[in-house]
Amino acid sequence: MLGLIQEKQLLIHTLIDYAADYHGRTEIVTRTVEGPIHRYTYADARQRSKQLANALTRLGVKLGDRIGTLAWNTHRHLECYYGVSGLGAVLHTLNPRLFPEQIVYIANHAEDSYIFVDLTFVPLLEKVQDELKSVKGIVVMTDSAHMPQTTLKNVHCYEDLLAAESTEFEWPEFDEKTASSLCYTSGTTGNPKGVLYQHRSTVLHSFAACMGDCLGLTSRDAVLPVVPMFHANAWGLAYAAPMCGAKLVLPGKDLDGKSVYDLMADEKVTMSAGVPTVWLMLLNYMEEHGLGLPDMSRTVIGGSAAPASMIRTFETKYDVTVIHAWGMTEMSPLGTSGVMTKAIEQLPFEEQLPYKAKQGRVIYGVELKITDDEDNELPRDGVAFGNLLTRGYWITNGYFKGEGGNVLDNGNWFNTGDVATLDEDGFMTITDRAKDVIKSGGEWISSIDLENAAMGHPAVAEAAVIGIFHPKWDERPLLCIVTKAGKDVSKDDIMAFLDGKIAKWWMPDDVQFVDEIPHTATGKIQKTTLREQFKDYTLPTAQTAAD
Amino acid sequence: MLGLIQEKQLLIHTLIDYAADYHGRTEIVTRTVEGPIHRYTYADARQRSKQLANALTRLGVKLGDRIGTLAWNTHRHLECYYGVSGLGAVLHTLNPRLFPEQIVYIANHAEDSYIFVDLTFVPLLEKVQDELKSVKGIVVMTDSAHMPQTTLKNVHCYEDLLAAESTEFEWPEFDEKTASSLCYTSGTTGNPKGVLYQHRSTVLHSFAACMGDCLGLTSRDAVLPVVPMFHANAWGLAYAAPMCGAKLVLPGKDLDGKSVYDLMADEKVTMSAGVPTVWLMLLNYMEEHGLGLPDMSRTVIGGSAAPASMIRTFETKYDVTVIHAWGMTEMSPLGTSGVMTKAIEQLPFEEQLPYKAKQGRVIYGVELKITDDEDNELPRDGVAFGNLLTRGYWITNGYFKGEGGNVLDNGNWFNTGDVATLDEDGFMTITDRAKDVIKSGGEWISSIDLENAAMGHPAVAEAAVIGIFHPKWDERPLLCIVTKAGKDVSKDDIMAFLDGKIAKWWMPDDVQFVDEIPHTATGKIQKTTLREQFKDYTLPTAQTAAD
Repeated sequence: MLGLIQEKQLLIHTLIDYAADYHGRTEIVTRTVEGPIHRYTYADARQRSKQLANALTRLGVKLGDRIGTLAWNTHRHLECYYGVSGLGAVLHTLNPRLFPEQIVYIANHAEDSYIFVDLTFVPLLEKVQDELKSVKGIVVMTDSAHMPQTTLKNVHCYEDLLAAESTEFEWPEFDEKTASSLCYTSGTTGNPKGVLYQHRSTVLHSFAACMGDCLGLTSRDAVLPVVPMFHANAWGLAYAAPMCGAKLVLPGKDLDGKSVYDLMADEKVTMSAGVPTVWLMLLNYMEEHGLGLPDMSRTVIGGSAAPASMIRTFETKYDVTVIHAWGMTEMSPLGTSGVMTKAIEQLPFEEQLPYKAKQGRVIYGVELKITDDEDNELPRDGVAFGNLLTRGYWITNGYFKGEGGNVLDNGNWFNTGDVATLDEDGFMTITDRAKDVIKSGGEWISSIDLENAAMGHPAVAEAAVIGIFHPKWDERPLLCIVTKAGKDVSKDDIMAFLDGKIAKWWMPDDVQFVDEIPHTATGKIQKTTLREQFKDYTLPTAQTAAD
Repeated sequence: MLGLIQEKQLLIHTLIDYAADYHGRTEIVTRTVEGPIHRYTYADARQRSKQLANALTRLGVKLGDRIGTLAWNTHRHLECYYGVSGLGAVLHTLNPRLFPEQIVYIANHAEDSYIFVDLTFVPLLEKVQDELKSVKGIVVMTDSAHMPQTTLKNVHCYEDLLAAESTEFEWPEFDEKTASSLCYTSGTTGNPKGVLYQHRSTVLHSFAACMGDCLGLTSRDAVLPVVPMFHANAWGLAYAAPMCGAKLVLPGKDLDGKSVYDLMADEKVTMSAGVPTVWLMLLNYMEEHGLGLPDMSRTVIGGSAAPASMIRTFETKYDVTVIHAWGMTEMSPLGTSGVMTKAIEQLPFEEQLPYKAKQGRVIYGVELKITDDEDNELPRDGVAFGNLLTRGYWITNGYFKGEGGNVLDNGNWFNTGDVATLDEDGFMTITDRAKDVIKSGGEWISSIDLENAAMGHPAVAEAAVIGIFHPKWDERPLLCIVTKAGKDVSKDDIMAFLDGKIAKWWMPDDVQFVDEIPHTATGKIQKTTLREQFKDYTLPTAQTAAD
C-alpha cells in the first residue's frame, strides 16, 4: 500500500524557485571577473537562469547534453547551475587548475557540447580548442563591452545570449534520478573519472548541508564560498544557500587575503568555506593589518586536514567557530562535519581541540563503517582503524561511462581509499590513505601518525613515511626527512625523539635524509613517486631478519 | 540519462539506525505512564524497536497492515513509530481525546488489526471493544507488574511480547512511497478522514524540520515534544530528533505546568513544541513559583494562533524564542515556521512582535499561493488575502479510501481552507477560515480581524463574527458578543469602539449579545452552530436595503 502524498520530483529548479518566491529580495553579491561588484537578488537570478535555459534551448541543447564550464564563483556561474540543470542538461564543471591536456581529455570524455568560459580562461581555451572533439560553441561569460579579441571559433557573448531571450520559461519535469551535473576527480592513478550527480541526490545533499549538525545554513546567513564552484559543487553551497534563502557572496577570481577579507567585511559575511591554504592567506592578512571579522560566526575547512594552529587562531583570536568537514567528489561531497556535541562544546577550548581536529561527525544520509582486509566490520571505539567505506543517498555507484569498473563492494559500500577510526559519538578520524598504511605482521601502522610525530622535531621541515618490503614483517616503515635549512640532525636524534611518542613496534626501521619530498599539484605528498625512488632500497633490519 | 548515484530508499528505519549508529549514547527520557522516569539511549531504542518488529511478525502483521495506538508520548510509543513502520506496517495514531464513537468509527475505517494502548486508555477500550470489527488483539503498553485486571480480549503485555524476541531484525527494504503512518483529521463537517503518510514524505519532512529556518533541531538539543505523538506525528519531532541525534524528553500523560516544568528543568530541555493551552499552564506555574528555564532556547507554538502576550512573556521574561509554526495534518504537518529574517531580528522586540504573531515563513519543500474565487493568483504583498493553497513533497493528494473525493485543484494544489496573505519574505498570515470569511459585494472581510478588534473592548469576554445574508451585499458581518461578568455595554458602545480601528465598510451591521459562544472539542469557535443559531435572524440593514 502506497501513502497518499503528492507526486513531486526532487529537482534542482525547485531550489531557485523557492529562493525567488519566498526570499526574492535576498541578495547575491559577486566580485566580477571584470572587476566591479555585481549585486542582484534571488528573483533576478531565477529570471536570468530562465533566460539562459531559453538560450540553451535555442542553441539546440537537449536533456542529457553536457555543458562545460571553466569558471570562477560568480552570479553567471550560478545561473549556469540552475539554467543548465533546470533544463535537464548536465552541468559539467571543469577544473581550470588542471593541466591543459587533462582538461582536453575530460571535455572530450564528457563530450561537452558547449563550454562556458570566464575571461580568465579564454587564452587556455584558445590553445586547446582544436583538440576538443564534441564542442559546438564557446560562451564567454561577460558582456559585449568586455568581449575579448579571440581566436575562439563559434564564440558567443553570455550577456548578448541572455538579452535575446524571454524571462518566461517553464522548467521541464523529469525523473528526479536524471543526471544534473558532472565533476571529474583526478585521483592518483589512471585517467580522471567523472562523478555524475542526480537531481535527487543534489536536493537531498542540500537538505543535509543545511542541517545544524552539518553546515547549519539559514536565511540569516551571508555565505561566501571560497571553495570553487568547479570543485565538487562548492561543497554543495550553491544549492544549499537558495534552499534556505541565505545571502550568497561570490568572490570571483581574487582569492588573496585582502580580496577575501574585504568582501567578507563589506558584505557582513557570517559563514564561509574553503581549503586551509586560503585561510592561511586570510589569517596572515588579518594579522598584518590588525583586523577582525565581527559578523563571521563560523567557517568550514575541508579539502585537506586543518592544522590545529589554524583552528586555534580562528576560534580563540577571531571568535570564528571552525567546522572541520570531510567528503569526496564521489560523495557530493559531504560526509562528515565537525560540529561538536553539547558535552564537548562545554569543555575548555584546548580540550575541544582534539575533537575539532578530527574529520567530523557522520551526517544523516551518509553511512560510514570501517573494516579490516577480510571485510570484517571493526568496532566504533575511536581506536580501531580500518578501511573506510561509505553508502548513502548521494554516494556514487560508479564513474561516468563505466571507468574504473565496479566501485561498490558487496552491500553496495563504496571504498573511500582512506583508513580511519569511528567513535561512539559519530566522530571519524582519518589515520591514513589505504595505500599508504604500513602493514607490518598483520597489524597496521599509520604513516600519517608517524609523519606528524616526526614533524614535531625542531630540525624537521617535512617528513614522509612509506612501507618497505621486509622478509619477516612484510612491510616496515621508512621515515624520509627534509631538514630545515642550517639544521643538523642524525638518525639517532630522530629515533630518540620519537621514542615514547609512538608505540614501540611503530618505530621506523630506518631514517633517510632527502633534499626534497615529491608533491602532487594540490600540495599533497606524492608517495607513489617516493616509493619509486626507494624501490631498490633495502632496510637495514631486513638484513638482520634474513641472517 | 540518469545520474550514477547509489539506490537508497528514503525509509523511516534509517532515522533510528542513524541515531543508534552515530549518536548511540544519546538519551531518550520518559515520564512513564506508570510514574517513574525511564531513561535509555538511541541504541537501546533501536534494539527494542527491532524486538517489537519481531513480535509483530510473530503476531502475523504484514506489510500494509494498520496498527493502532492510543498512547501518550513515551519511549514505548516511539518504539511503535519505528517497529511498526520499519516492518512496513502502518502506524495508525488514534486520538484518545475524541469521543469513543469517533474512535470506533476511525479504527474500523482504518481496519486496525492490533491496537497498542496505554494504561490510561484501557477502560475506554474495554467499553468499545465489541464494536471494533477488525481488531485481532490489544497490546497494553506496560510491564507484567503493571498489567491491569481487564475485560479486554486477546490482550498482550507489551514488555512480555518484547522480552520473548531477539534484538536481531533486518529491516525490510521496500518502495519509499510505501504507507508508513495514518492520522485522521476530524474537520468540521462529515466523518473523520485519514491522511496516509509515506516513508519518503516522512523522511523529507524530517529534513525540513531540522533546518535552521524551521525547527532548527541539532544534536545539541534536548527536545520535549508536548504536542502529542497521536497528533500529526508530534509535528514531526519523533522523526526529526533521531535524524539529528537530539536528546528526546517524553512527558507521558502529565501535561500540567509543574510536570512539564520539572521535566524541562531536570533534563535541561533546550527546545519544546506545543499548543498555546499547554504553554499557558507552564507560564502560570513559572510565574506563581518564580521559576525560569535557563537551558531553554526556543519553543514552537502551533495548533492555534499564539497570543501576542504569550510570545512577549516567553521572549522578554524568560529569554525563550518563540517559533510560531503553522501546518495541517494534511501537510505532515509543517508548512511555515516563524523564524525571523536577519533584518527583523535586529529590531526592538515590540517591532518584531507583529512578525512573530504571523504564522511564519514558508519552508523549502512546501509551496504556498493565494488565489481569489476565480483561481487567479493574488500578489505576495502582505496585503492581498485569498484562498491559501499548498503543494509539496509531504502534502496529501487524497484521503484514505478516497473519502472526500478529489482534494486537489488543477495544478495539484491542495486547498487548506484558510484565507491568508503572503509577503515578499515568505511570511504567511492567516486572516480567516475560507468558510468564515464574509463576502460583501465581491470583497472579503476577515471575521477573525473583526473578532480581534472587538475583543479589545474591556467589557468583551468573547466575540464571534459570522456572515448574514444581505439582499444588496450578499453577506454582511454580524458581531456576537459575550460580555464579561458584571460589565454593561451597548451596541452603540461597541460600534463607537470599533470606529477607526477597522475599515468603514468592515463595520458590523449589527451586534448581538449572547450568553455563550459555542466551541469545538479543541476549543475553537464553532461557527457552524452559531450560524445555525442565527439562521432565522435578519439584519436591520437588510430591511433598509429592501425598502
